[in-house]
Amino acid sequence: MEKKPEPDQKKVKVKLEDFGKGITTEIKAVKNPSFKVTTRTRSNIIYDKKAGFLRLGGNTEDHSFINISQSKRFMQTVAIAAKCHSFLEQNLHTSIRGLFYQLKYSLGDEIDENLFNEQTESNPLIEDLEVALSARRESLNLNANRKGVLVGNMRVIDKFGDGAEIDMSKMGRSGWSIPSDVDNDIEFTDIKAKYVLVVEKDALWVRLNEDGFWKKENCILMSTIGQAARGARRMIRKFADMGLPIYVFNDGDVWGWYIYWTIKTGSMNLAYIGRDIATPEARFLGVTISDLERYDFLKSMTMKATEFDLKRAQEMLNYPWINQHKEWVDELKLVIKTKLKLEQDSLQGPRLTFVDDYIKEKINGKLYLP
Amino acid sequence: MEKKPEPDQKKVKVKLEDFGKGITTEIKAVKNPSFKVTTRTRSNIIYDKKAGFLRLGGNTEDHSFINISQSKRFMQTVAIAAKCHSFLEQNLHTSIRGLFYQLKYSLGDEIDENLFNEQTESNPLIEDLEVALSARRESLNLNANRKGVLVGNMRVIDKFGDGAEIDMSKMGRSGWSIPSDVDNDIEFTDIKAKYVLVVEKDALWVRLNEDGFWKKENCILMSTIGQAARGARRMIRKFADMGLPIYVFNDGDVWGWYIYWTIKTGSMNLAYIGRDIATPEARFLGVTISDLERYDFLKSMTMKATEFDLKRAQEMLNYPWINQHKEWVDELKLVIKTKLKLEQDSLQGPRLTFVDDYIKEKINGKLYLP
Repeated sequence: MEKKPEPDQKKVKVKLEDFGKGITTEIKAVKNPSFKVTTRTRSNIIYDKKAGFLRLGGNTEDHSFINISQSKRFMQTVAIAAKCHSFLEQNLHTSIRGLFYQLKYSLGDEIDENLFNEQTESNPLIEDLEVALSARRESLNLNANRKGVLVGNMRVIDKFGDGAEIDMSKMGRSGWSIPSDVDNDIEFTDIKAKYVLVVEKDALWVRLNEDGFWKKENCILMSTIGQAARGARRMIRKFADMGLPIYVFNDGDVWGWYIYWTIKTGSMNLAYIGRDIATPEARFLGVTISDLERYDFLKSMTMKATEFDLKRAQEMLNYPWINQHKEWVDELKLVIKTKLKLEQDSLQGPRLTFVDDYIKEKINGKLYLP
Repeated sequence: MEKKPEPDQKKVKVKLEDFGKGITTEIKAVKNPSFKVTTRTRSNIIYDKKAGFLRLGGNTEDHSFINISQSKRFMQTVAIAAKCHSFLEQNLHTSIRGLFYQLKYSLGDEIDENLFNEQTESNPLIEDLEVALSARRESLNLNANRKGVLVGNMRVIDKFGDGAEIDMSKMGRSGWSIPSDVDNDIEFTDIKAKYVLVVEKDALWVRLNEDGFWKKENCILMSTIGQAARGARRMIRKFADMGLPIYVFNDGDVWGWYIYWTIKTGSMNLAYIGRDIATPEARFLGVTISDLERYDFLKSMTMKATEFDLKRAQEMLNYPWINQHKEWVDELKLVIKTKLKLEQDSLQGPRLTFVDDYIKEKINGKLYLP
């Protein structure tokens, strides 16, 4: 059921070796060693309207060793590549902070300088390497921060350690923590769910899990717990690749919208891994200010939008990926007109389980935004 | 194996009913209805030196209905009590934000006022109720934010939903998410671990989990993922009640110390639930600045302490629960003298698995701080 379009660790190890061989071949041929990376500056980030996500354009730059402004950076990138290769050989992972500490050493008694002094030096070079190799850092055995939880009728076979098979329908009140890497040495099987519900706040996830919402509806119930981490975004992409509809249930405010659009179209920061973590198929269930016309009780649940909310709503109207949708233009204009916002928690106002009914009504009535 | 010193939901439901009956009895007797709460102001927070944690002193205050300054607050507290009682009757939970939205309604057509306008009004009244009833909010079916993860040789029987039995030794790369409530409808069985290792950062937890540290050492490997949530602090207390030694492995900086002391002695904010979430038995494994004398490579791993770090270190020397320990006085004075700090991530400097050896050396050599 699961597609595997991405290079896995084995392929990435070979890519790292080829990267190293390329450099040593150039040195042996008395050439200036260099490698090519796709530029990640704002001017090379494009919204691919047809595909529906942010990705890098065609601009590239050469990084070469014999170049005063690039020489240190070149050496540092090679050092990062060597470390990642050794992590893959050892079959061990670390964080980008762990990698930094492995590289924070003196260049020797005669050179009064460290290879790296600050993590802000190593972070962009990790991205260089990801782009140069067309490999996500997760396959370089670098863990990103993980966040997010899910439960539902499916199983996870985690080949790490004992190769535990974990039943996502027997996770009690806790749910399964979505790891940093959902591609390597992990499988998702027996997926019987009909759709995926992604919830912004863990408190609402806990509420819906208690109601057995995912059992009654046969869905996968997931929370990003605020802004979605790389692993959670990748997980959503994978679910969409399996053909499952993705519904996102967030606050009706700047932060809720931002989380949604990050899931859907990706983000500027991660445009370099484009489609891998963007899910243009996602739909926004709410909460929306237009819900006020649908549910009378919500009128006493509103909050005043801040100046920041209103400013951002206005800015969002300028984004091509948003203003191509009339429904979003209407919603954002309504926010600006009414100066109101709504939290998903407020759906518990009439009774705790009302939130379940709201979601079902929105999905069944196709009352979501694109 | 597990002690159950705390009132569970059933007892709390009876307490709420008695609370209501007390008030109605007074009204029927044409008396001014009132209830007593222990004062939670700073002046009534004491460090219990013998027991080793922060708790409330003996000062109490009466909250009564017929008192201009207290009447609204009294009514609001009763409304909260009624809501919590209905949550217990329905066997449903919500967050304190969900509770707030259930209470954010107009008092009627003739009174142009809401029962509650802001959550800052309801939060302290929930604490009033917890104190008045000697019950934690978790047993009032109010979920706190959950954070933290664990793995190890033990099982959790989560009576919620299907009553799933979850094997903590088969959680793969993810671990078990520690829920808000680790007391009601949940059991911890088959605990074969010898001790509990509490790790500040999830990245280090992931690292140690990958190494199978908990299998080799037969320990419970837990992360608070930064500051410990109520559920995680309660879980640590419960492990200590089971007789398991608790070792805390944090950064050697202000934040790491703060997380440790919150686990150990509790905090000002939560002094009203005192022993329930304090673990004076906890020990601080490190990282410490005194480690610099023990591990030579750490000298290139240090960071400069900020002014804030140094100011806090100085302040900590004034806390009676800290300055009673010579080891802590020495450590803090060393920080102030060297102006250095160290992160736990830096233990990966020589090799990724060095962190495992560090922890074992610290425990086996009893090289921890009290």
